[in-house]
Amino acid sequence: VVAAAVDFGGTGVKLALVTASGERLARAAFDTRAAANPAAWVEAVEGCLRRLAEEAHLPVSNWVGVGVGAPGFVDFAQGRILTLPNVPGWDEFPLAETLAGRLGRPVWVDNDVNAMALGECVAGAGRDLQQAVFLTLGTGVGGAIVLHGRVHRGAHGLAGEIGHLSIHLRGPRSPTGIGGLEQYIGNQAIVALARRRLLRPGAVSRLADAATLSVRDIAEAAAAGDALARGVFDRVGECLASALASVAYLIQPEAFIIGGGVAQAGEVLFAPLREHLARRLHPRFLRDLRLLPAALGADAGVVGCAALAFQGARA
Amino acid sequence: VVAAAVDFGGTGVKLALVTASGERLARAAFDTRAAANPAAWVEAVEGCLRRLAEEAHLPVSNWVGVGVGAPGFVDFAQGRILTLPNVPGWDEFPLAETLAGRLGRPVWVDNDVNAMALGECVAGAGRDLQQAVFLTLGTGVGGAIVLHGRVHRGAHGLAGEIGHLSIHLRGPRSPTGIGGLEQYIGNQAIVALARRRLLRPGAVSRLADAATLSVRDIAEAAAAGDALARGVFDRVGECLASALASVAYLIQPEAFIIGGGVAQAGEVLFAPLREHLARRLHPRFLRDLRLLPAALGADAGVVGCAALAFQGARA
Repeated sequence: VVAAAVDFGGTGVKLALVTASGERLARAAFDTRAAANPAAWVEAVEGCLRRLAEEAHLPVSNWVGVGVGAPGFVDFAQGRILTLPNVPGWDEFPLAETLAGRLGRPVWVDNDVNAMALGECVAGAGRDLQQAVFLTLGTGVGGAIVLHGRVHRGAHGLAGEIGHLSIHLRGPRSPTGIGGLEQYIGNQAIVALARRRLLRPGAVSRLADAATLSVRDIAEAAAAGDALARGVFDRVGECLASALASVAYLIQPEAFIIGGGVAQAGEVLFAPLREHLARRLHPRFLRDLRLLPAALGADAGVVGCAALAFQGARA
Repeated sequence: VVAAAVDFGGTGVKLALVTASGERLARAAFDTRAAANPAAWVEAVEGCLRRLAEEAHLPVSNWVGVGVGAPGFVDFAQGRILTLPNVPGWDEFPLAETLAGRLGRPVWVDNDVNAMALGECVAGAGRDLQQAVFLTLGTGVGGAIVLHGRVHRGAHGLAGEIGHLSIHLRGPRSPTGIGGLEQYIGNQAIVALARRRLLRPGAVSRLADAATLSVRDIAEAAAAGDALARGVFDRVGECLASALASVAYLIQPEAFIIGGGVAQAGEVLFAPLREHLARRLHPRFLRDLRLLPAALGADAGVVGCAALAFQGARA
């Protein structure tokens, strides 16, 4: 038995047929820009999915259902897209209903980060965990909470926004508050921090060309021993540790599962993160807490989308 | 049908027989210092409970069970007191087993703040809520999360410690971290803040005698229009709003239920809290969030302890 998974990203749409244990049996993908509006998107997704069904000899009518992860605000209960900040034209779109009408199978729609978190907890780093908090560190800082194998959605479906946790009472303002974590460790904030430090009088670093800096450049320099780059990741670790300590005190998960581009820095990030966490958490909380790198990479989304369908069909 | 409730506080022990809907049918109390060690405490509690049973004509053998709320670290699953920071001699004490052996009824033991939160959600301010976060503001800042009528205990039973959420990356250090909320809005921190402001050159306030100041004095002065006292509560509201915004972004409860001595300041606290929360939460999160004063006062503990027993007996 399989479910179809549609991981709707800001730049690409990934599709797959996935088993209950997270095995990916067939895949497809298309460029988000190739589908300029919801109707074109639904058309493209339907076409892709029907081709996958044929190629894999797994007829649509046998699917448990379809799970979709979308990059923005979603009303999970209604299967509606509320709004997608980076994809115009999707406000208040009844995606589950529309797609289900085309395919004749039930459809569940969730936020993409919720789907990734579920994927990691079904078949990735959190496979043996009952309570985990997932983070994806990239342009933004996304998060989701999985309790007893289910996404904790909160009273109105929007829980898990770790990127908006305030780590500084009088930090930078943004539309989501004051001193939010994302203002400190989002991709751009990391690059800006490195740039500021490079421009300090007397700064010494192999990161000479401050104009074209990326987080990957900084991570590579830090891995090679560059002190300035290491200082930047120490600061990122400190900010992230502050937020994770607060999350641990509040909900005490078994583990944090950390993915996304910035997390690919590996030990360059994890080492200072562990160090700062040890200063910020009481030993009783620190002792049992695990920090895990995400295991599924770019596949977390499709695995999680399929899990949404399996869970929905069981409920 | 009733359950017996034992609210074990740092200064007094309150006992009651309570119905499933939270009605208190009979009560007793004794001074915590009157029972110098766990054995004496168990003896005193057994005596009190048996007297209540007789007086109320509700025989022990008919009770659903006994719920105990204790002021410290508790292993709920095992019914063990791990340690009580303010009551010496209780380390690693098997309270549920001991008391159950004496009374012949099952016993559940939880942290006192968890019990209060459950009490408010069964029969108090959170009576109609599915997802609520409870705070008690006093000497310390305690918290607990109730999801779908049950305390969310986290992976190892210690979740809900809102007082340790960091609101400032480089704030004051304590054994529980850096910049913890309690360091800013615990009773002593509020008094210290008022004192610092009173000692500023040119400070004008009706709070003349900085030496004997209490939070109640400051709240009364603020209610009477004293600008310095209002400034203190504005700062308390700002700090609390920072933590509550983070909690809302993370778990999105329907409501915060706020009790404890400091919360008795009422609008003096709630008005600036609402104001700062509006600056710190995205409208989508702010819109549906309720701030509720706790409704059961000193009775939240016994009502919650009884609820523990009713829930335990059903499970």
